[in-house]
Amino acid sequence: MTDAAKPKLYAYWRTSATYRIRVALALKGLGVEEIEVNLDKGEQYEPAFQAINPQGALPTYVEPGHAPMTQSMAILEYLEERHPEPALLPRDLFERARVRAIAAQMTSDTHPLIVPRVKKYLIGEAGFDDSTWRAWQIRWFTRGLTALEAQLSGDPATGAFCHGETPTIADICLCSITAVARVFKIEVAAIPTIDRIVATCEALDAFAGADPMRQRGAPA
Amino acid sequence: MTDAAKPKLYAYWRTSATYRIRVALALKGLGVEEIEVNLDKGEQYEPAFQAINPQGALPTYVEPGHAPMTQSMAILEYLEERHPEPALLPRDLFERARVRAIAAQMTSDTHPLIVPRVKKYLIGEAGFDDSTWRAWQIRWFTRGLTALEAQLSGDPATGAFCHGETPTIADICLCSITAVARVFKIEVAAIPTIDRIVATCEALDAFAGADPMRQRGAPA
Repeated sequence: MTDAAKPKLYAYWRTSATYRIRVALALKGLGVEEIEVNLDKGEQYEPAFQAINPQGALPTYVEPGHAPMTQSMAILEYLEERHPEPALLPRDLFERARVRAIAAQMTSDTHPLIVPRVKKYLIGEAGFDDSTWRAWQIRWFTRGLTALEAQLSGDPATGAFCHGETPTIADICLCSITAVARVFKIEVAAIPTIDRIVATCEALDAFAGADPMRQRGAPA
Repeated sequence: MTDAAKPKLYAYWRTSATYRIRVALALKGLGVEEIEVNLDKGEQYEPAFQAINPQGALPTYVEPGHAPMTQSMAILEYLEERHPEPALLPRDLFERARVRAIAAQMTSDTHPLIVPRVKKYLIGEAGFDDSTWRAWQIRWFTRGLTALEAQLSGDPATGAFCHGETPTIADICLCSITAVARVFKIEVAAIPTIDRIVATCEALDAFAGADPMRQRGAPA
């Protein structure tokens, strides 16, 4: 049964990009109807979802009466503009740039390398096996998080969160990477600033509730 | 000789992310001092640049008296907020989301897979050679541009440009991919809508002037 007035979030339990939207919605106190699209069963290619988003990409966010939105960063910026409070970006332009840059380091420099279509190519067409795929995953999680650790730990703008004392889009994107690393049982050592910030975030209901392992469809 | 009052753009001739900033600055009529960091000589790891940006990443954009900015999307959003005219994002929130999603498809789904550090890993540690690296490049350029073609060609919001009748961040990011594909001599077939939009963009001085082959350091 669907509620025609509510926005819909097409989602799957373990995707990093969907996690980001779940956290932002929760921080802003926005309700949505979440609809599962089972990537492991290929439901993104079935007519029901193709009619909504021919790209087959998650998350897809739909406000009633409007075209479906894709791409987690575009959706996050939309939610911030449409529902400015509580703010997930600072007001100062230079601080906004810092927050967006941290977010991009996670979502553009790190995450795209470990997504399913890359795995499919490397295993199916480039001779990778489970072990070399795992080495590849570890390499990019480690490189991304280690670079961010160096940056955060040396910058006085870093606070309880990636930027100051309230959660921002930077924290959402950081935790979207560490949460998925946990799903894959990948641990990155010697990132104490990140470990501290992630623990601070995950003590908040909005982050804890978005944990992939707590979503419908996750392994018990 | 440096002009202390002018913003500085640390750049290299062929990087896709630097191209985006060059176009945005030109469209907005903003002057900067461009400083070459020769990635092929490893200048990003030398003390002179490490003192400015320890990540060694390009582009790095510096406004006098402020911390260096990194990540092309964060810099583009900053330039748009700081210098709103001419606008590179529509005013309507849903249209902004569409433009940002197209940009992200290029910068997050496509570009990160073909950057030098990925090449270095695949060739140095995963047994790729020039031929399998080229197949990899072709795969992701083709997949990214073909998916975008399907989306743009079927959407009435597409105009002379990716969105409507003026250039936006979406066009900047699209052309940043096609310009680099050209540097690599990679042609993607059957993308007439994209070919038309890119030609429209490149007829504008701001795009033409940012062409990698026209930058200092490019091969003659």
